[in-house]
Amino acid sequence: MNAAPIGIFDSGLGGLTVARAIFERLPHESTVYFGDTARVPYGPKSPETVRRYSLEILQWLLAQGVKAVVIACNTSTAHALQALRDASPVPVVGVIEPGARAAIAGSHGRVGVIGTAGTIASGAYRRAIEARAPDFEVFQQACPLFVPLVEEGWFDHPAARLIAAEYLRPLREAAVDALVLGCTHYPLLKPLLQAEMGPDVRLIDSGEETARALEEILARNGITGAAGGASSHRFVVSDDEARFRSVGARFIGERLSGAEVVPLG
Amino acid sequence: MNAAPIGIFDSGLGGLTVARAIFERLPHESTVYFGDTARVPYGPKSPETVRRYSLEILQWLLAQGVKAVVIACNTSTAHALQALRDASPVPVVGVIEPGARAAIAGSHGRVGVIGTAGTIASGAYRRAIEARAPDFEVFQQACPLFVPLVEEGWFDHPAARLIAAEYLRPLREAAVDALVLGCTHYPLLKPLLQAEMGPDVRLIDSGEETARALEEILARNGITGAAGGASSHRFVVSDDEARFRSVGARFIGERLSGAEVVPLG
Repeated sequence: MNAAPIGIFDSGLGGLTVARAIFERLPHESTVYFGDTARVPYGPKSPETVRRYSLEILQWLLAQGVKAVVIACNTSTAHALQALRDASPVPVVGVIEPGARAAIAGSHGRVGVIGTAGTIASGAYRRAIEARAPDFEVFQQACPLFVPLVEEGWFDHPAARLIAAEYLRPLREAAVDALVLGCTHYPLLKPLLQAEMGPDVRLIDSGEETARALEEILARNGITGAAGGASSHRFVVSDDEARFRSVGARFIGERLSGAEVVPLG
Repeated sequence: MNAAPIGIFDSGLGGLTVARAIFERLPHESTVYFGDTARVPYGPKSPETVRRYSLEILQWLLAQGVKAVVIACNTSTAHALQALRDASPVPVVGVIEPGARAAIAGSHGRVGVIGTAGTIASGAYRRAIEARAPDFEVFQQACPLFVPLVEEGWFDHPAARLIAAEYLRPLREAAVDALVLGCTHYPLLKPLLQAEMGPDVRLIDSGEETARALEEILARNGITGAAGGASSHRFVVSDDEARFRSVGARFIGERLSGAEVVPLG
């Protein structure tokens, strides 16, 4: 049993959907969430830059005494997971492997992946799926307008439906039977995406799958928090606390009463 | 006569609409454009951070021998114009004053201003208009989805029309007779915005007004380039040259054959 907190980080707000999935699956675990709002978004930055920023955050989280680290950011997972595993004395979990594994388990061989332009260009989900299931076909689609739609709160606006219809058309035509939400903002669009894809397509929420993977890793390492123990949740950002608080409330509700500001780098 | 180049900078791509307006109005002037793509967007960053980044870029442009500097970024103009004027030995022009002056000249007293969430929250256009025309009424509207729509190239997509209709409804209801495009991305949406507002509303393109103001400042300081002289245009970014080139082509076409990469900070 280990009462130390779990470190969770993202380039900004989106990782809060992963944090929420962890709160729900592991209600006795404490967490420290770091959102690098001063340097968001990571997507358009070079892999070297993303690795450097991610390593800075890892060091900061380790200084807070975390017992495990969750990279709640697809871009950082794609570019920095291995570097963080090499540098970290505690286990590090990314969002891509758990999402890819769940997609394989939930599909008969035709998987769609949606994400930001950066995540899709990185091909990280495609590689993770094809490495484990070489006979699977993976169809990718960048959806750059989904993040601003979510941050605007237009989860069911007619414009959101038109945009989703356009982005998802190639995936519907490809008859995928599973759709990986390869961006941490997208779980807030689930009803819209499910309606657009139809009831037979399974949506894979990488955040939920990552919470499940984290649970296994804590158990395997014997560092699970005490059942019945009180948990606490800290939120820290590198800039613009007010926007994080107001938009972040859409992601995890009243749990987000405020955030500390710690500039990095 | 002075053949030195004009420095132009923005947090990223958007300032290319200002650069284009300068190319058209001042075809004999050479330019150096700096897009801070490693640190885009500036909107959500604190005023202090924006000032620090802007001063770094000013120093870099001065080291390139520029004879004047154009801040082709609304956020940087709002937070850093005075600091840059204090620090610069050459004239510095921002986009807000020229836009505000043109709005006053083109309106009978009811002006709409659209921009990113950060620009609208800063109130910079409202203050600039009210300082010169205290009897004017200014109606502001943040339009966070317009930048990603422009970068996606969806200038006349049905979703773009629905989004514009929703954002502009309060301004139509307020019966504004001039609309300031308070974000450098928005000139690419002009036909859509004009259709939505109706033919009697004058659209104020801050980039065009800034090019006009620059022309006056060059003349007043006796540093205009030689008419008939050859001009050259350099583009420099702090990261992700490939995306700057592909999306930037929407902004200024084939003039943007490539960009150098200079990391700052």
